[in-house]
Amino acid sequence: MTVATLKTTPERLLARDRRALARLITWAENAHPRFPGALREIYGHVGRARRLGVTGPPGVGKSTLCNGLVSCLRERGSEVGVLAVDPSSPFTGGALLGDRIRMESHTKDPGVFVRSMASRDSHGGLARAAVDACDVMDAFGFDELILETVGVGQAEYDIVSAADTVIVVLCPGAGDSVQAMKAGLLEVADVLVVNKNDAPGADRLVSDLEDAVALRRESRDGWTTPVVRSSAGRGLGLEDVLAAVEQQRTFLGSAGLAARRRKMRVAQVQRTVGELLVQALWSDGCRVEFIKTALASGRPPYDVADEMRDQIL
Amino acid sequence: MTVATLKTTPERLLARDRRALARLITWAENAHPRFPGALREIYGHVGRARRLGVTGPPGVGKSTLCNGLVSCLRERGSEVGVLAVDPSSPFTGGALLGDRIRMESHTKDPGVFVRSMASRDSHGGLARAAVDACDVMDAFGFDELILETVGVGQAEYDIVSAADTVIVVLCPGAGDSVQAMKAGLLEVADVLVVNKNDAPGADRLVSDLEDAVALRRESRDGWTTPVVRSSAGRGLGLEDVLAAVEQQRTFLGSAGLAARRRKMRVAQVQRTVGELLVQALWSDGCRVEFIKTALASGRPPYDVADEMRDQIL
Repeated sequence: MTVATLKTTPERLLARDRRALARLITWAENAHPRFPGALREIYGHVGRARRLGVTGPPGVGKSTLCNGLVSCLRERGSEVGVLAVDPSSPFTGGALLGDRIRMESHTKDPGVFVRSMASRDSHGGLARAAVDACDVMDAFGFDELILETVGVGQAEYDIVSAADTVIVVLCPGAGDSVQAMKAGLLEVADVLVVNKNDAPGADRLVSDLEDAVALRRESRDGWTTPVVRSSAGRGLGLEDVLAAVEQQRTFLGSAGLAARRRKMRVAQVQRTVGELLVQALWSDGCRVEFIKTALASGRPPYDVADEMRDQIL
Repeated sequence: MTVATLKTTPERLLARDRRALARLITWAENAHPRFPGALREIYGHVGRARRLGVTGPPGVGKSTLCNGLVSCLRERGSEVGVLAVDPSSPFTGGALLGDRIRMESHTKDPGVFVRSMASRDSHGGLARAAVDACDVMDAFGFDELILETVGVGQAEYDIVSAADTVIVVLCPGAGDSVQAMKAGLLEVADVLVVNKNDAPGADRLVSDLEDAVALRRESRDGWTTPVVRSSAGRGLGLEDVLAAVEQQRTFLGSAGLAARRRKMRVAQVQRTVGELLVQALWSDGCRVEFIKTALASGRPPYDVADEMRDQIL
């Protein structure tokens, strides 16, 4: 049976048709009504790919590092899917320049697929869209998925939490790196990378990070986050980063990985139920009228919201 | 009765105690359980201040423009409250450098109050926190509120939509400005400002924006968005920006303003109800157990979410 004779998009995806891959990710991005049905058809093929989350402040060289990691993974024979998520939409260059400029060196490699996603395209549910897109790439058959994201608001946290391994990239000289540590990025890091390792202040940043890791009250899953140096622009340290990722994978084991993924799926369903309920809620025009009338009488918004909640539950 | 003898924080706010002002904004930011009660006490004093939203890509000079607008408004005798919201947390300088660096020239002026807010502090509800903080500043008695924000994701959209007038700031030479137009910023703009008007490309950007405004299918409230030039760093054009704001206010009239504010309040209550329901939902451990069991049997996440929604409604 050739690809041309297959009827549905999910069937074509499982037959490794790239156009079906692109279309299903677009469905995920747009919250297309056909996406849940499509996911049902491919869900049995989801779960084989390893998911690597890469995050950190702008300007630390995340994209260069990801580009280098893709090269290393390709040398090992892995096929790699990359999802670059830019929640700060629509202004920063990342997702706008997008697939064209990003990962230029890999554009002709059929073993690499790169896709950008910005929050303006995701209908308010960037974490939902990112996880769905990963499921699609996973079912397509990539061995490794890289999820690159900037920042650590709630949406970004939901996104990196969906990865099996989270790499947090920092670099010396950026005050942002210190802020990132304070802002809770350390808590989600399985591997800390100090990129631009040849810049002044790298040793200090490495030792600060090592201190911070040592002082951390609870390590995630009992794993001690290593601090790895790289200089991705010069192609240095990439293998060390991957070695640290491998060590974390070994430490986690199949039981630890399964536990982490179960947690991720529960969070995904909770988010989805929340979205569905809110949708159902306001499709009833009477509820909106009730709010308008209550507000018109001068009642404070939280009092109106409380009463409405009590009415519903 | 002196401030010292007043008992509650809301009472002290209404007596124009600055420490009460700071504390109530912190309550708003942290979603403190006492905030709704405090808002109830001051809500009768909310509604007098004019709320000006200022947004646009990073680097167009928003902060400099806001700083200049504050000076102009002060010269007119208005007291001004500024809320600088940085949803892209925790990396960009804005909210981190925060109150200390921002608005330096106004720090000693008792007629100006400046506060920064980043998404990491707002417990996931930046729009909620920003609107609540504006209500607090409004009840305190400021004549004008300036809400400065970067970007236009959903959170930022909710924030600028809460203003009576939205200024979108762009500048020549930034590719981002063109992207901003495409990404829907034009739709929320009541006044478009081309800042750095002396930079090359300003004429082109102005005429592009004027074309875009003319081509727009529906203008908000029937108002034609003007394009105003400024060079905030040199103190030029600030009065023109304020004049455009005044024109929009006159055009809107008291009925138009009231309609806009009603809409904002309805959206606020809807968001709050959604948050309250989601909270109530997952405080019931049985629901989480149901999700875990359903997922363990290999069912796709959307099917599990659908079933749970049907159970609840």
